[in-house]
Amino acid sequence: MTTEAGATAPSEDTGTVVTDHDRGIHGYHHQKDEHLKRLRRIEGQIRGLQRMVDEDVYCIDILTQVSASTKALQSFALQLLEEHLRHCVADAALKGGSEIDAKVEEASKAIGRLLRT
Amino acid sequence: MTTEAGATAPSEDTGTVVTDHDRGIHGYHHQKDEHLKRLRRIEGQIRGLQRMVDEDVYCIDILTQVSASTKALQSFALQLLEEHLRHCVADAALKGGSEIDAKVEEASKAIGRLLRT
Amino acid sequence: MTTEAGATAPSEDTGTVVTDHDRGIHGYHHQKDEHLKRLRRIEGQIRGLQRMVDEDVYCIDILTQVSASTKALQSFALQLLEEHLRHCVADAALKGGSEIDAKVEEASKAIGRLLRT
Amino acid sequence: MTTEAGATAPSEDTGTVVTDHDRGIHGYHHQKDEHLKRLRRIEGQIRGLQRMVDEDVYCIDILTQVSASTKALQSFALQLLEEHLRHCVADAALKGGSEIDAKVEEASKAIGRLLRT
Repeated sequence: MTTEAGATAPSEDTGTVVTDHDRGIHGYHHQKDEHLKRLRRIEGQIRGLQRMVDEDVYCIDILTQVSASTKALQSFALQLLEEHLRHCVADAALKGGSEIDAKVEEASKAIGRLLRT
Repeated sequence: MTTEAGATAPSEDTGTVVTDHDRGIHGYHHQKDEHLKRLRRIEGQIRGLQRMVDEDVYCIDILTQVSASTKALQSFALQLLEEHLRHCVADAALKGGSEIDAKVEEASKAIGRLLRT
Repeated sequence: MTTEAGATAPSEDTGTVVTDHDRGIHGYHHQKDEHLKRLRRIEGQIRGLQRMVDEDVYCIDILTQVSASTKALQSFALQLLEEHLRHCVADAALKGGSEIDAKVEEASKAIGRLLRT
Repeated sequence: MTTEAGATAPSEDTGTVVTDHDRGIHGYHHQKDEHLKRLRRIEGQIRGLQRMVDEDVYCIDILTQVSASTKALQSFALQLLEEHLRHCVADAALKGGSEIDAKVEEASKAIGRLLRT
């Protein structure tokens, strides 16, 4: 059942099952603390941007900070993606059947969304 | 306060002048509220990401949210850049002399940093 | 007339006038040879990709070459954009009136298209 | 010929095996014709860019064409990557052992290079 849900997992509507799936096979909760630390740092960068705008800091310097925040978000995404490939996709391959195709297509679409931004 | 703003700016050598310049000619303080609203929305998205990680939400759904935040940051940067070109760069052109070259080179480097991320 | 055409220049339909405009004010024909050399190098990279696919080279190595070609295209675009800002946009600023707004909006849209890819 | 393919491959240490692997399990030679067609189209776009520069076409119109070519390269890369995940990575998972980690890390680095451009 976890398997089916994992295979078809489109989005949040299947949240719970997917979460079980994550807990069971997915590895990213091992790195949860690191992820949360990264995201809090990015949140701090965004608040820093608000301060800069509020203090009329020179636009070019604000743009430099925006680039840093975007880079940080991208590298967070990349780490998450790597764990996903290592755990969910590899797991789907072991299960065999059509699940691997669904997982790979899903991952590729996510990579495409990252590339378009 | 000009100094404070200047101090928070990486390229401090042009800090003071630039900040006065911003106040005087530069237009982005007209849109300050809009910019701050955009940034607060992005800050909320980053906090949403922390919740998602904390609740073991499926990685693909987290990646979708990361893409949305990156897109929002990019479009904030683009709006800031457009105002910068309209005000600082145009102003430098009117001043004549070598300032326009410095401003254009500076803006191009900023665009390059945005493209690389 | 060149001015009007330059100001309203939306796309290829105003080709000729724009070309005069380029010849007159725009600087990029000075770097024409350098641009053509860059583009021929990129064309060679694309042909190299065809060879790699044809010889069943490992996909990861093909992807590395794709990244190099994309980077080369982006840096070509960036150089073209810098010349455009230095010449057309600065020129529009000197002309005064609404032309600068049209030019800046046009340039920002072009930057947006580069960012989205 | 395997050697030749290996020779053109940056990560030459895995050259031979990888190429056999491609021939055997990897799927991209099934889509070889489609890939070559895509790449020839991109090559044509790059030649089009040379014509545009040569004819002093307005820079903004050249930039639009550059964006189109970059997009085409990215979507070629994405398709190649999807096939790679479906075949090489899934295959490594079935083999078990440490190969999956090596493959996933390799794929993630490739995705990172695509994102940085």
